[in-house]
Amino acid sequence: MRDATGLPRVVCRDPYAYFAHVSGLLNPPPQAQAGTHADAVIDASAVVAEDAEVGPFAVIGRNARIGARSLVGAGCVIGHDVTLGEDVRLHANVTVYDGCVIGSRVILHSGVVIGADGFGIAMSDERWLKVPQIGRVVIGNDVEIGANTTIDRGAIDDTVIEEGVKLDNQIQIAHNVHIGAHTAIAACVGVAGSAKIGRYCRIGGASGIVGHLTIADHVEISAHTLVTKSIEKAGTYSGAYPFDVNREWRRNAAQLRHLDALADRVRVLEQKLTPPKRSKS
Amino acid sequence: MRDATGLPRVVCRDPYAYFAHVSGLLNPPPQAQAGTHADAVIDASAVVAEDAEVGPFAVIGRNARIGARSLVGAGCVIGHDVTLGEDVRLHANVTVYDGCVIGSRVILHSGVVIGADGFGIAMSDERWLKVPQIGRVVIGNDVEIGANTTIDRGAIDDTVIEEGVKLDNQIQIAHNVHIGAHTAIAACVGVAGSAKIGRYCRIGGASGIVGHLTIADHVEISAHTLVTKSIEKAGTYSGAYPFDVNREWRRNAAQLRHLDALADRVRVLEQKLTPPKRSKS
Amino acid sequence: MRDATGLPRVVCRDPYAYFAHVSGLLNPPPQAQAGTHADAVIDASAVVAEDAEVGPFAVIGRNARIGARSLVGAGCVIGHDVTLGEDVRLHANVTVYDGCVIGSRVILHSGVVIGADGFGIAMSDERWLKVPQIGRVVIGNDVEIGANTTIDRGAIDDTVIEEGVKLDNQIQIAHNVHIGAHTAIAACVGVAGSAKIGRYCRIGGASGIVGHLTIADHVEISAHTLVTKSIEKAGTYSGAYPFDVNREWRRNAAQLRHLDALADRVRVLEQKLTPPKRSKS
Repeated sequence: MRDATGLPRVVCRDPYAYFAHVSGLLNPPPQAQAGTHADAVIDASAVVAEDAEVGPFAVIGRNARIGARSLVGAGCVIGHDVTLGEDVRLHANVTVYDGCVIGSRVILHSGVVIGADGFGIAMSDERWLKVPQIGRVVIGNDVEIGANTTIDRGAIDDTVIEEGVKLDNQIQIAHNVHIGAHTAIAACVGVAGSAKIGRYCRIGGASGIVGHLTIADHVEISAHTLVTKSIEKAGTYSGAYPFDVNREWRRNAAQLRHLDALADRVRVLEQKLTPPKRSKS
Repeated sequence: MRDATGLPRVVCRDPYAYFAHVSGLLNPPPQAQAGTHADAVIDASAVVAEDAEVGPFAVIGRNARIGARSLVGAGCVIGHDVTLGEDVRLHANVTVYDGCVIGSRVILHSGVVIGADGFGIAMSDERWLKVPQIGRVVIGNDVEIGANTTIDRGAIDDTVIEEGVKLDNQIQIAHNVHIGAHTAIAACVGVAGSAKIGRYCRIGGASGIVGHLTIADHVEISAHTLVTKSIEKAGTYSGAYPFDVNREWRRNAAQLRHLDALADRVRVLEQKLTPPKRSKS
Repeated sequence: MRDATGLPRVVCRDPYAYFAHVSGLLNPPPQAQAGTHADAVIDASAVVAEDAEVGPFAVIGRNARIGARSLVGAGCVIGHDVTLGEDVRLHANVTVYDGCVIGSRVILHSGVVIGADGFGIAMSDERWLKVPQIGRVVIGNDVEIGANTTIDRGAIDDTVIEEGVKLDNQIQIAHNVHIGAHTAIAACVGVAGSAKIGRYCRIGGASGIVGHLTIADHVEISAHTLVTKSIEKAGTYSGAYPFDVNREWRRNAAQLRHLDALADRVRVLEQKLTPPKRSKS
């Protein structure tokens, strides 16, 4: 169906998705230039697809595998036994630790660190002992991860990011976290160890998920919310303190420290006014 | 005017600014050493000023321009068509994506990422589509940006940081944000997409600015505050939950979940005590 | 004491610490491979232990000292006059600015930046002046620092991280902070300038410590808490806003803005009900 201009008439339920489609056609990502820069260091045992591109000052470790048409940007360091799928795009200065597995069509932005040790420590004789972190990070297909985001390797099992997950910048994903497919997380979020987040969740910026929780599918978390217990039902959850002019904020915040006492005082007033009536009815 | 010691007598309104002046004279920043390290990779089409310094393992892309006396530190990756002004100082391991523009006397600390893709995604058929991010980041003169801070490129228009802005470490600036001249932002702040922050603002650490808001000039935001709507008037705004001994915090925070009900109960008490009088007066 | 299997019977107060011990024995960290990669740039005046390992595209500055068996990973940039102790392990793409001192057995994960300038600025004639940051970062023995964490150099004195401190990922430590021995800090925490944190503290994720505070030894801070004044007594302190279903949260948060007025109304009710009795008693 075309109108007088000859252009197709746009009839779509979701104009933003339509725009994304069209803009994606008009602005295809730059293609990998087949070849390895002379100033890259690639271990002899690594397998790099012929049509992959490896930029200057990139390092690729023992037995690493770089899939077809993938791009390893300048200054990236890819550890031993790492696998990158096809059409992967690592922007400059990404680090992937040993043994991690990255699916196809994954995009990692600059400064991303995949597979650093999780924060596993145990107190013994007044000193912290390091708990070896021997799991991996496994990232599914079609995942995009923003600049300077960090995803720690698992302690024993793996940290898992399922397909289609989209992570913004400066997110911290701790060891053994599991993020379900097609969940999107905005910038500056921290997810603590072993949390399990469902599919199609949307998590607002600067939120936090406490460790060892489970969050159901299709849960939406507002910005700046700390999730302190499991969420079993889809829906929207919030927990930011409302901001105000400093003078008002100070007055109200000061009362907050006496809120329990205030509730007690209201209870006393209620008893004074009502108990006789109640006992008779 | 000198006193008996022969030293100038310090008579100044702001001793800290005076200290900054004097300390700056006594501790000038190290100067760029003219020349390009043999282990840098500079595209033949790039224009690097003769007296600029390019460190080892730095990469400079097609048609990039590096101004007079600028320093590109070791391991920096400067994309295609990037412009750096004069006397710019990029510490080691900075990444600047294609097309970004950086003014004169700008300082970028290590780990900074300028121009990564903004978080533009649209849901279509139960999958996220990537919205191409084709704007740039444009940074004015005399800006300083702290370690591991990230500034995303615009979706269509540019992300703009005006002259004299000072950003601390680990700040996240999303696509199409506009920060007015001489605003200072402390560490760990997140500014969501298309927010417009005025001139001479001061934003405390770990605060968040929700997307598509406007903040007036000379606004001060306290630490850990989430700004959820536009601020049209200069002043100080706050929104952190007051901390307390855990036992007290638990009592008060539990009541917080019944605050609306508590307000209702107070209303009922007021009606019991006052309505007859009110209706007569 | 051994049981029928011949294995020592496990009788221990803390099974997690025991697990850490055993797992550490079974999973020793990879050893540095003595030698310097041909593609590293090491200043002639630097002293690198013979059995240290320097990876490809690493840079080591003037008068730097790299201790025995230490590993400087690929892409690391070590400034002038830096000292690394023995058995130090720098993962890929770490940056250490000039003059910093790092003890023995320290582990720095990828993307860590040690010694960037603190956020020292002074307003003068409507422009920010930079206050030179001429202190160092001094890190004790047995410290581990997670991916993309940043520790700024002191303004005049040093920023100090005492022995045995464990820092998770994406933490920001500002200039002149002092962290006591064996304190552990979870991810995404920000510590503002000149804060002094005691020994054996445990600080939860995404918390913030305001500048110029003192925190006693053995203090525990819950996640997402902003500490706004000094803590003089060991104990647990909290300050996160409790999250809720969005509808409930909106109701309660709206009342929060009238909390001071609500307390006044309760006071009025109390006076109406009780003053005569009080004045007589």
